Amino acid sequence: MKFLITAFEPFGNDSKNPTMDVIKGLELPDVDTLVLPVTFNFFQDFTEAIEDKKYDYILHLGQGGGRNKITFEKVALNYMDARIADNNGDKPVNQPIVADGPDGLFTTLPIREIVIALQQKGYPASISYTAGTYVCNYIMYSSLHYFRDKSTKVGFVHIPYSPEQIVDKELPSMSIDLVKEIIKETIKILSLGSFQSEQVSLGETH
Amino acid sequence: MKFLITAFEPFGNDSKNPTMDVIKGLELPDVDTLVLPVTFNFFQDFTEAIEDKKYDYILHLGQGGGRNKITFEKVALNYMDARIADNNGDKPVNQPIVADGPDGLFTTLPIREIVIALQQKGYPASISYTAGTYVCNYIMYSSLHYFRDKSTKVGFVHIPYSPEQIVDKELPSMSIDLVKEIIKETIKILSLGSFQSEQVSLGETH
Amino acid sequence: MKFLITAFEPFGNDSKNPTMDVIKGLELPDVDTLVLPVTFNFFQDFTEAIEDKKYDYILHLGQGGGRNKITFEKVALNYMDARIADNNGDKPVNQPIVADGPDGLFTTLPIREIVIALQQKGYPASISYTAGTYVCNYIMYSSLHYFRDKSTKVGFVHIPYSPEQIVDKELPSMSIDLVKEIIKETIKILSLGSFQSEQVSLGETH
Amino acid sequence: MKFLITAFEPFGNDSKNPTMDVIKGLELPDVDTLVLPVTFNFFQDFTEAIEDKKYDYILHLGQGGGRNKITFEKVALNYMDARIADNNGDKPVNQPIVADGPDGLFTTLPIREIVIALQQKGYPASISYTAGTYVCNYIMYSSLHYFRDKSTKVGFVHIPYSPEQIVDKELPSMSIDLVKEIIKETIKILSLGSFQSEQVSLGETH
Repeated sequence: MKFLITAFEPFGNDSKNPTMDVIKGLELPDVDTLVLPVTFNFFQDFTEAIEDKKYDYILHLGQGGGRNKITFEKVALNYMDARIADNNGDKPVNQPIVADGPDGLFTTLPIREIVIALQQKGYPASISYTAGTYVCNYIMYSSLHYFRDKSTKVGFVHIPYSPEQIVDKELPSMSIDLVKEIIKETIKILSLGSFQSEQVSLGETH
Repeated sequence: MKFLITAFEPFGNDSKNPTMDVIKGLELPDVDTLVLPVTFNFFQDFTEAIEDKKYDYILHLGQGGGRNKITFEKVALNYMDARIADNNGDKPVNQPIVADGPDGLFTTLPIREIVIALQQKGYPASISYTAGTYVCNYIMYSSLHYFRDKSTKVGFVHIPYSPEQIVDKELPSMSIDLVKEIIKETIKILSLGSFQSEQVSLGETH
Repeated sequence: MKFLITAFEPFGNDSKNPTMDVIKGLELPDVDTLVLPVTFNFFQDFTEAIEDKKYDYILHLGQGGGRNKITFEKVALNYMDARIADNNGDKPVNQPIVADGPDGLFTTLPIREIVIALQQKGYPASISYTAGTYVCNYIMYSSLHYFRDKSTKVGFVHIPYSPEQIVDKELPSMSIDLVKEIIKETIKILSLGSFQSEQVSLGETH
Repeated sequence: MKFLITAFEPFGNDSKNPTMDVIKGLELPDVDTLVLPVTFNFFQDFTEAIEDKKYDYILHLGQGGGRNKITFEKVALNYMDARIADNNGDKPVNQPIVADGPDGLFTTLPIREIVIALQQKGYPASISYTAGTYVCNYIMYSSLHYFRDKSTKVGFVHIPYSPEQIVDKELPSMSIDLVKEIIKETIKILSLGSFQSEQVSLGETH
């Protein structure tokens, strides 16, 4: 089985992006890694770069400032609404990503099974039902849309700030070592392909 | 213009649902109100009850425990994942609402314009990008799906706990009077139909 | 019984201070109100202004940005550590308020009894064990120290942001009307002087 | 220089206490470790156990569920108010720890200097102005009171939940490895004795 794990460059006020540290040393025989720019217009370049690779799984990692767990996104929206400019200076507001694309697309990764397996090992992981409206959601929607009729499974994982990023913030963090351990475990779970099918709820009650 | 505002009965551990207090006295010449059961199987009854009414706008109100603002939902998901049983004792886990329905459906209410107008008047309102996976999301998705080719516009609004609900909780609240004032203002904004079209971002950065 | 309720002027980035709105119209036959400057050097002026008044109770109100309830402070510290300059431009760091004063002084208000009575009426009130290290703590410590051998009882009450202050923040708020109602109820509880003495814990577990 | 680092047993609903994992392997030539019971009556046993040891520094570690950083406590209060029973079944409510003791006692550890040094190395550390009203505050107050005229310096450090403790909670956590690294660094800072004296504010603005 072939995996691609992507990270993002730093953006906004942050001089580092913990996803870049997470993928360092993650290269395994079947795992490629790639750092993506934080811009709203690179998706075509991305698909051209990987078109011959025939990945079984693509895991996009993104910084989820404020999150306390590794969160696997359920859905991407056909929507861009940028509060801050991307690294090209673009700031799309209230726009679709794909003209006439469906409003939402569910991840094709078995995220329930992954999260249940991780939690049973004591790892702080959960499902998130919003990937925001910025570049994280843009790449997740674009990938899901591009690979919708292909065999490649696509998922997006938000990771907490690293400890050094919250020295002056009242927000949670997670050690890079622990994030790396959980991502490796996720790859292992997917490689084994033997998922739990327990009917545990991982939902949000509102 | 004709409006329907719905509230929900109490559910889970809560003996009250603030939405029921909010709709009390909200009946205006063009505004009907209705209290819905917190169950995953009442939608057909609901549509039968209102099918002759030809509403221009349906606003579903739901309790959003933990929210600090009046939040207008952007999207409903074709997904049920109940952490607690509904008031019938049903607890659907990891299931679609509508077989073969689209993954997500955007609200047909002009929520950006409403939120910008409310914020300009000093009201704490915002857009939310997840309505959860419980009965709130179920009614929102069901209504959007049912009215998808009709002229009725559908929206869902989560309101914070009332002050008396948080006496023993570390969570935000909002006075019923203030919620009522904001809902009335929302109806007024929709009645006037003259929306701001400013390109202000109301998005979430992740 | 004679009461003094004090408010504070706006400070920092806030153009309003909700305590000023709370005390408006709160003047009752036995209740005086006073707006204090947000500075670290006005305490002598304050005591000169009120020295003939013989108040039974002084309640200092302060803005507690981020709090979700009306919180009655248990203790003031002999310590100033200002993150931002006060309204005079002073910014004392790591200094005592009263040379050789005790490290901490407990409020002389029966705050447990007040909070239990308020909670029984459904009001969101609680005890706080830190008044910070800024002007709120300064006035609380100064008053408790000045009146330590006198009959005047002194307390400090932090109130949440007002709803209009959190339009662009992810923090709780409370309507001015509700704060005013709770402060009036507090005055009534103290006037009646018949306190609950239930052994309910209002503590913080760490 | 001789150090004592204490941990606590698990309490309440928690089957583990991360402080016990933190002190494992922390024994260095000049560092003793000790696990304390979570009870309100063990302090005399504690002092008898250590009376010949002549420690220069005692650092009590406690679990601070909900905290996102390593927090060094500024003050202990002469107050017990237990929301849950201790591990003996005792539940003191609204009582002093030491009859006629002062209301508050400041830590005798140079916590500002420690926190500034840790932050400069990128560690998430801060000062806390409340140690609660449970056993953590009890041991901190008891130690500060007992050693008030002696040369031993006393401090209390609250540490976040460990990652496995928050699998089902919406709260921050910190890896045991990182906590251990920060405690070791703290011991090193105290051993070197060369503290920063920068006038940076570490206060809380209210």
